[in-house]
Amino acid sequence: MAGRFITIEGSEGAGKTTQLAFMRDFLERAAYPVTLTREPGGTVLGEKLRALLLAQHDDGIALTTETLLMFAARAEHLAQVIRPALAAGRWVLCDRFTDATYAYQGGGRGLSGAQIALLENWVQGDLRPDLTLLLDVPVEIGLARAGRRGAADRFEQETVDFFERVRATYLDRAQQQPERYRIVDAARPVGVVRADVENLLAQWLERD
Amino acid sequence: MAGRFITIEGSEGAGKTTQLAFMRDFLERAAYPVTLTREPGGTVLGEKLRALLLAQHDDGIALTTETLLMFAARAEHLAQVIRPALAAGRWVLCDRFTDATYAYQGGGRGLSGAQIALLENWVQGDLRPDLTLLLDVPVEIGLARAGRRGAADRFEQETVDFFERVRATYLDRAQQQPERYRIVDAARPVGVVRADVENLLAQWLERD
Repeated sequence: MAGRFITIEGSEGAGKTTQLAFMRDFLERAAYPVTLTREPGGTVLGEKLRALLLAQHDDGIALTTETLLMFAARAEHLAQVIRPALAAGRWVLCDRFTDATYAYQGGGRGLSGAQIALLENWVQGDLRPDLTLLLDVPVEIGLARAGRRGAADRFEQETVDFFERVRATYLDRAQQQPERYRIVDAARPVGVVRADVENLLAQWLERD
Repeated sequence: MAGRFITIEGSEGAGKTTQLAFMRDFLERAAYPVTLTREPGGTVLGEKLRALLLAQHDDGIALTTETLLMFAARAEHLAQVIRPALAAGRWVLCDRFTDATYAYQGGGRGLSGAQIALLENWVQGDLRPDLTLLLDVPVEIGLARAGRRGAADRFEQETVDFFERVRATYLDRAQQQPERYRIVDAARPVGVVRADVENLLAQWLERD
């Protein structure tokens, strides 16, 4: 049996990494073989590209370049990690995927959805996540949480307006694709969010 | 007046870099303002991507990734160097451009021309070189010349068959687009090739 491809999305400080670890534990307790990974990154080359993408550049970086680098890292991630794991029947849990490109490069920076869709099809063919959990949190709460983590990278230094557009794009996509998305209120305490996520997963597993 | 965009193409050992320097001198003697640049590279970020592309990777690099990285470097090059120079009326001389993607990732590695054209349009809109000089040299001569330059990079280590496909793709494109391309027999001594290139440029300048 082919595996399942589950992604987790959300803006800064939503708690994605924490919840993803809980999700792995939950699935492994249910005896599913899990591959945990993240974007941008997930491969040796991809992590080098991640470092380039998050670093400050004296002369900036063009939006087209940034978007192509995201998809280059994704292409490598698909070829080296995601597709082989799915083919081997593993459950792939991925911290951010193409929805993040729509939210950040699209909603945040203004690249059109049509331009992003073109690269999405070029790189992924018809592969899409089976399930996407959107950890939604008001921008001010998310940024306050993220601020505790130390020096901000190139994305974390964006304005509140930018993150409002990111959040609105995520919510808009989730509402347009209710079959694939589950929205989780991530402003609540971590244990409450965890219980919610595990319930959603359990329901989805039953239906699947 | 907008500048002109001239590219030089050819496989390993064709003498592109040498002839490009002669072309710059020739145009500067004629009082044209010249910007000399190269791909992949041409920007700080682009040169980092060039290093990633030419390096050996333990687990290889997917063809889709390689192609997206080439276009990411190109997008940055266009945004930072080529478009501003052309807008300022400068003549841009570029060592390789998108024809090289068709030749190497297309002819050499087997990515379809349609897939490449899609990224070409995505990144360049309708910008194409005004003139492309193809320095054509039989594969065995080119490789013998390139072999004198020391340790081979990831592309230079390809097989003779690979370079035959690269050469055939270049020649095919040149024959299909005679308005833009000029083919130069680069198997001859460097001074003879130089005279030929300068004559072609002079004729093109008169017509332009």
